[in-house]
Amino acid sequence: MKKALFATSQDAEAAFYEALTKSDLDAMMAVWADDDDIYCVHPNGARVSGVERVRESWRKIFAGGQTLRFQLREQQNVQGMMLSVHSVYEYITVANEPRPRGPVVATNVYLRTERGWRMVAHHASPAPATTSADPEPRRAASPKTLH
Amino acid sequence: MKKALFATSQDAEAAFYEALTKSDLDAMMAVWADDDDIYCVHPNGARVSGVERVRESWRKIFAGGQTLRFQLREQQNVQGMMLSVHSVYEYITVANEPRPRGPVVATNVYLRTERGWRMVAHHASPAPATTSADPEPRRAASPKTLH
Repeated sequence: MKKALFATSQDAEAAFYEALTKSDLDAMMAVWADDDDIYCVHPNGARVSGVERVRESWRKIFAGGQTLRFQLREQQNVQGMMLSVHSVYEYITVANEPRPRGPVVATNVYLRTERGWRMVAHHASPAPATTSADPEPRRAASPKTLH
Repeated sequence: MKKALFATSQDAEAAFYEALTKSDLDAMMAVWADDDDIYCVHPNGARVSGVERVRESWRKIFAGGQTLRFQLREQQNVQGMMLSVHSVYEYITVANEPRPRGPVVATNVYLRTERGWRMVAHHASPAPATTSADPEPRRAASPKTLH
């Protein structure tokens, strides 16, 4: 399989949520760096480290067969030359459910590798429902760039 | 107050957990970057962004008056020139309780600023108790350095 090359951390993030939406394991793992230092914390979960265990964790999630839709809000980035840290609220809708589930707050970390930007960490945890009066997704603010 | 200058992200992390242990709000905020893009996710909490709200969240926690002791395990770092991402299991013991509470998994992000390394993100979430047969704290592995 020809792997995509992500020119920016935003491209890698878009591919991550697209793979999640499609339950596409190969596309998901193409987003992650091929490195034993990668790690993933699924909501309410323990830390899963390394390519094999991260892959297996997504395989189990995708095997559940749920079709998910993600709406991302309140994106906030700290962008370095080699590493980029994104924070985002995920509002997840499960197919056949009338309304989104409670939000998940995620920290996504991307690394600039020889093969483009890749995910090295995903830390997600359930967050209390917000009391925001603004139900519209917000545009991402300009990332803070550190050069 | 003269603020400490942290030469490495490890120094900043040590100061973070020392401030937590001592419930020292000024020392805690001296670890954080003075930047509105900082954010903190306390266990089971929402994201708190910006210096004022992060400070207020720690003030409330420290006002609880609990004396906490932290044992850190399974540290794992991705170290860049300007950003450093640390992942760690926190085993928290509350004074007068006989044994540590269930672990918390934390992602800690540090930024190299003009005033040394500072924390820009702390994302903590409760993790299931591990079944590790190794009760001893592990030494941090050598950080992966990206230059």
